[in-house]
Amino acid sequence: MAKKTVNVAMIGAAFMGKTHSNGWRKVGMFFDPPYTPVMKVACGAPGEDMTVAKEKWGWEEVSNNWEEVVNRPDIDIVDICTPNWLHPPVAIAAAKAGKAIVSEKPLSNSLAEGQAMLDAVKKARVANMCGFSYRFAPAVQKIKQMITKGELGHIFHFRAAYQQDWIVDPNFPMVWRLKKKYTGSGALGDIGAHITDLCHFLVGDVCEVASAMETFIKKRQVPTSNVGGISGTSGKNTGKMDTVDVDDAAVYLGRIKGANTLATFEATRFAPGRRNYNTIEIYGSEGSVLWNQEDMNVFHYFSRKDPGTLQGFRKVQACDPGHAYVGNWWPSGHIIGYEHLFVHEMYEFLCGLKAKKGNYPTFEDAVKCQRVLEAVEKAASSKKWEKV
Amino acid sequence: MAKKTVNVAMIGAAFMGKTHSNGWRKVGMFFDPPYTPVMKVACGAPGEDMTVAKEKWGWEEVSNNWEEVVNRPDIDIVDICTPNWLHPPVAIAAAKAGKAIVSEKPLSNSLAEGQAMLDAVKKARVANMCGFSYRFAPAVQKIKQMITKGELGHIFHFRAAYQQDWIVDPNFPMVWRLKKKYTGSGALGDIGAHITDLCHFLVGDVCEVASAMETFIKKRQVPTSNVGGISGTSGKNTGKMDTVDVDDAAVYLGRIKGANTLATFEATRFAPGRRNYNTIEIYGSEGSVLWNQEDMNVFHYFSRKDPGTLQGFRKVQACDPGHAYVGNWWPSGHIIGYEHLFVHEMYEFLCGLKAKKGNYPTFEDAVKCQRVLEAVEKAASSKKWEKV
Amino acid sequence: MAKKTVNVAMIGAAFMGKTHSNGWRKVGMFFDPPYTPVMKVACGAPGEDMTVAKEKWGWEEVSNNWEEVVNRPDIDIVDICTPNWLHPPVAIAAAKAGKAIVSEKPLSNSLAEGQAMLDAVKKARVANMCGFSYRFAPAVQKIKQMITKGELGHIFHFRAAYQQDWIVDPNFPMVWRLKKKYTGSGALGDIGAHITDLCHFLVGDVCEVASAMETFIKKRQVPTSNVGGISGTSGKNTGKMDTVDVDDAAVYLGRIKGANTLATFEATRFAPGRRNYNTIEIYGSEGSVLWNQEDMNVFHYFSRKDPGTLQGFRKVQACDPGHAYVGNWWPSGHIIGYEHLFVHEMYEFLCGLKAKKGNYPTFEDAVKCQRVLEAVEKAASSKKWEKV
Amino acid sequence: MAKKTVNVAMIGAAFMGKTHSNGWRKVGMFFDPPYTPVMKVACGAPGEDMTVAKEKWGWEEVSNNWEEVVNRPDIDIVDICTPNWLHPPVAIAAAKAGKAIVSEKPLSNSLAEGQAMLDAVKKARVANMCGFSYRFAPAVQKIKQMITKGELGHIFHFRAAYQQDWIVDPNFPMVWRLKKKYTGSGALGDIGAHITDLCHFLVGDVCEVASAMETFIKKRQVPTSNVGGISGTSGKNTGKMDTVDVDDAAVYLGRIKGANTLATFEATRFAPGRRNYNTIEIYGSEGSVLWNQEDMNVFHYFSRKDPGTLQGFRKVQACDPGHAYVGNWWPSGHIIGYEHLFVHEMYEFLCGLKAKKGNYPTFEDAVKCQRVLEAVEKAASSKKWEKV
Repeated sequence: MAKKTVNVAMIGAAFMGKTHSNGWRKVGMFFDPPYTPVMKVACGAPGEDMTVAKEKWGWEEVSNNWEEVVNRPDIDIVDICTPNWLHPPVAIAAAKAGKAIVSEKPLSNSLAEGQAMLDAVKKARVANMCGFSYRFAPAVQKIKQMITKGELGHIFHFRAAYQQDWIVDPNFPMVWRLKKKYTGSGALGDIGAHITDLCHFLVGDVCEVASAMETFIKKRQVPTSNVGGISGTSGKNTGKMDTVDVDDAAVYLGRIKGANTLATFEATRFAPGRRNYNTIEIYGSEGSVLWNQEDMNVFHYFSRKDPGTLQGFRKVQACDPGHAYVGNWWPSGHIIGYEHLFVHEMYEFLCGLKAKKGNYPTFEDAVKCQRVLEAVEKAASSKKWEKV
Repeated sequence: MAKKTVNVAMIGAAFMGKTHSNGWRKVGMFFDPPYTPVMKVACGAPGEDMTVAKEKWGWEEVSNNWEEVVNRPDIDIVDICTPNWLHPPVAIAAAKAGKAIVSEKPLSNSLAEGQAMLDAVKKARVANMCGFSYRFAPAVQKIKQMITKGELGHIFHFRAAYQQDWIVDPNFPMVWRLKKKYTGSGALGDIGAHITDLCHFLVGDVCEVASAMETFIKKRQVPTSNVGGISGTSGKNTGKMDTVDVDDAAVYLGRIKGANTLATFEATRFAPGRRNYNTIEIYGSEGSVLWNQEDMNVFHYFSRKDPGTLQGFRKVQACDPGHAYVGNWWPSGHIIGYEHLFVHEMYEFLCGLKAKKGNYPTFEDAVKCQRVLEAVEKAASSKKWEKV
Repeated sequence: MAKKTVNVAMIGAAFMGKTHSNGWRKVGMFFDPPYTPVMKVACGAPGEDMTVAKEKWGWEEVSNNWEEVVNRPDIDIVDICTPNWLHPPVAIAAAKAGKAIVSEKPLSNSLAEGQAMLDAVKKARVANMCGFSYRFAPAVQKIKQMITKGELGHIFHFRAAYQQDWIVDPNFPMVWRLKKKYTGSGALGDIGAHITDLCHFLVGDVCEVASAMETFIKKRQVPTSNVGGISGTSGKNTGKMDTVDVDDAAVYLGRIKGANTLATFEATRFAPGRRNYNTIEIYGSEGSVLWNQEDMNVFHYFSRKDPGTLQGFRKVQACDPGHAYVGNWWPSGHIIGYEHLFVHEMYEFLCGLKAKKGNYPTFEDAVKCQRVLEAVEKAASSKKWEKV
Repeated sequence: MAKKTVNVAMIGAAFMGKTHSNGWRKVGMFFDPPYTPVMKVACGAPGEDMTVAKEKWGWEEVSNNWEEVVNRPDIDIVDICTPNWLHPPVAIAAAKAGKAIVSEKPLSNSLAEGQAMLDAVKKARVANMCGFSYRFAPAVQKIKQMITKGELGHIFHFRAAYQQDWIVDPNFPMVWRLKKKYTGSGALGDIGAHITDLCHFLVGDVCEVASAMETFIKKRQVPTSNVGGISGTSGKNTGKMDTVDVDDAAVYLGRIKGANTLATFEATRFAPGRRNYNTIEIYGSEGSVLWNQEDMNVFHYFSRKDPGTLQGFRKVQACDPGHAYVGNWWPSGHIIGYEHLFVHEMYEFLCGLKAKKGNYPTFEDAVKCQRVLEAVEKAASSKKWEKV
């Protein structure tokens, strides 16, 4: 077990910083990656209090200067958990410094920036991963295997929705995720990106789209603690209103490259009762599968080969040890949670670190996703089908 | 109870003929409509054996000549259960003869024909209903009431799918429902019509659409017993192949007239495991509802007013006596089935017979639906959003 | 189709009278029984208004004198839908008159009476059926076939609950179903009887039991319209209270004769939210099945033979035409309801009419069930396991 | 954050050792307990390889001598994760050494031993907890609060089942969990203990029981690697057979002390398809709740106060931040898993460490549970109701 260690620097220490910290911390406890990650340094925004990252999350050091951190010679992996608009500069600097890079999704706020990031990692020939974490659910891995083996046959339909409800309340304040300059797009880039990537991963590349986008609540109150409208939700309302200039919901139709497959997508933050309902349905000539991340340890499988009067959707427990990753956790019927996806993600990245490729989504995948999102935005305004 | 009776003539005696016969037969047993329907005469195609209609379904007389039947002076109501392409001539003749008319859906194979039918009933000033039977599910009636009362608030999303799987098998033969000249369109007109009508009934009028349509299996074998490819599925295959010239699936996006609402529709006969899965989701500013006809006696309701830690989708049993129609059937928890929708439909038609209007969909509603379907077809080929 | 007709007399015209009327009325429309039932006469209590039975339900004649009716020479079948305490005299008189007999369940209020009824039909050698209607759900028929064919292997567990909530409200008044002298027992005989019969039908005979019974609300108000506390629930409360002397709930453990099988039963009218939740779970060495009458058109099947990572409970739609009875109704995915069970029941009785046996529960089955219920009552008071 | 640290020694390093290690490791990352646990030493059986515990799980030291470890002066907490038969000696030694003690459940193989353990901790006045981990599911905590506040009213029924299927295969070999001398009882003590404790925690104390117990497969093959039939399942079969002398399933009825409540319990390892299906149903005069650990992040709640036509079981997501513990994890709709229960458990123990009591089950609770299990065994053989 005298494995080579790799030093990780994490940039950004909010929600995603917490999930990634937990991922790095647990991966060696439950899996046997070829490298042992060392949680070397966590870096926050200038002036941000980093006590929690150090004392609770387990980072050896903390910093408030990402440029310095990214260029430290002892750092092997740069893990980017910042808000979207910071992904490009950090990633490009990290690539220049020759670091392996993990970036949260969406890769960037625009396709151009994403392309620049991809160019940078290609030029630097560094390992790179974009955090489409839902790929790492055991059920999703199983569905991927089934499709690859032809167990669903030719795919007729991919039907996805990612529904949330956290901003339905008109009194929910302005936050950075509702301003284009910080986030690029709204529901589309935040959660539409996930279902688009799942379509790419499982079924094929979206090659053209038609769409509609909508902002249901067009103005939001600016909270006191929210300088520039970019941070969290706390603080009293100032009484000032600011314009929401991103989409609250995006719905789109797609066709799959080289295949006779229809895809439909629905990404919304305005579906009361849906906390984080990321659901896909795939219908093929041999069978069908259904999956939903709120109940992510199961999927439903229909096989046309089952005898006539015993056909039906089977609720498969993907938390049996025969499923991907599950053997490293608990016995049958003991579910895993959202956070485990990140442990699997870090594990796969470490497995592919040397070869610079593996069972994980790269910046190339992320740019491909970005291209679809850009076409969706274009189609929403042109009111035509647009090529990706 | 010495009510006025009304004499019914039913034209067409296949699947829909059976459901309607049952509807007429039961309505007086369980409900108290202002008129008592008399099952006077059932009429089949020329040469069709009508023994079952007479001896089992309970029609007093049978016939094979619809023109004669439609013009009989003793007939008050003409109920059209023929294949689609016969709806217009029968309906127009019945209107001319001054009969009240029930027509199965879709009203017609083309908008022009539907408009002609509507003109005919308007000119003749006869009561008219088009059989969008799902409106008559108690759960759907309740959802309608809730939306009318504002209990869901402003509607953000209408999300519907009507999924079937009866022709996934490539060996399933050519039938009339797969030929444009007999049926107009495929999944779109047959089942897309239903979810479009539910959108109109519950949420509002679709005013523009973008779409994609697909025929997954383009040729089908012609069975021996299937002269002209128009009747049922029995008979050995002849070895000859015929072209499917209607859609196997249609997916479309819509916007609702005068409202800030996104609607998405998916109609397909290629969803293995979905026998007759007609499902709608409605998300509004105050709450959400979900309904699915395979489990039609319940719906799921989420209220934003429930206390925070007790929020959740409620599985409401719409087969409690407080719900529409249910008090006329059985006690709480004793479910009703598909056929009961037709009993409710006939009941509502009889209630509105004198006033020529009531709680049922008219030819006007049907033409409105038809207009959407035509726009969907146009949008599929123009690859643009099309106005309805 | 010139079948022999059989004349039916129905005694009792409340809830069960309505379901049976509908059964007799529909059976010939959808099925081809060897005899055509004629709804000859419906008989109510002395003084009861029978207009509805005649004008709506379709009985040719009505009467208020059951003894006369039962002895009419033109009657072939006597169908007993009265409250429980009248089952024995009517059935015994009908047997003496040589009539085929259908009796609602429970057969009688005591085992002794049930035995007397059984003796009477045996002596008279008349066809006899007791209305354990849930046997006639297509899903239950399928489960029976699966067990018979060994598809579930050796049965380890039968786990059943029949839960209702119609008397949870302490203000719900005294009714005949809560008085021992009219009903024999409470939840036990009314709904425990059903799950006991399902155990007998599907798994095997209960041979010994342990139990507990409870009356949660011991006094109820007597309504004005409720002379003697025996009829319905309408009428203002009189302010007088009467004692509930039957069980509100009965829970019991059982063992199956000659088998290594554990059975558990829970019958209660005190489970808020459970309208008519009759649910069974059967676990065997090869697989398991789950069924629940509130969702009676499906059952869940787990097969140990499915491949490891694709095992799971399959939601089988028992409303596909391949299932018992379903081919006579509607296409796949179009559900049937509670009332259809009675159509199937009447169909099976007519099929077995000549042979005086068939695929239906007889008085013998009913007495066997009664014996278990009596042992449950005995065990509740002895606080020991009691042999059946 | 300069908190006092406490040194933990864990005895036993198999499945439960892994869950507890993870619990100790994560508690400080996500919660703010008043003491910071230090993972000082993990102790295995004599000769057991402890590399994983040290290098992966994060224990500072390892040992194979529990007596030595338990008596180390630097140890504050002894956490017992051994097989059942070792709980008593370790716990009693730890108590004598004045350590705070965590013991896995069941506390012991016999009531007498459990009582001795309780006496020891009482005498030593040390903090003590028994690992009934399911109490720590946020949904279970919420149900507890609801019952305490009277939101379910008077409880009529507690209905529980804990179903597994890991030994249904007759070729599954002999393991220590199937031998009385190592484990005390079978399904009863292993999983029946959990549902009994949940009844105690949520509803009240079981005061008398009737029961049946069964061993479906009476002989099992002895694997080579399984000296004495006590360890894991690996190794070829030797061909020798050994007798299973514990129950495969136990079903029991209970009554609750001082309350008019019926309780039913079903614990089995012979329910194919049920991996770890620990489910409870509670029906009260104001409402009902349902919960199942395979889907542990939700529970279903029925309120009798909901308006008539909108009543139904609500699927409440107990992974919203308003629920116990959840605010320390992830945003709404991001589920937690089985392992998190142990983090909550360690958190509560640390919170109560100083006061030696808190929101966790003590040895006293465990002995109370043990008393019920002993009565169940007695009742199974006496075939009578037995007092607890």
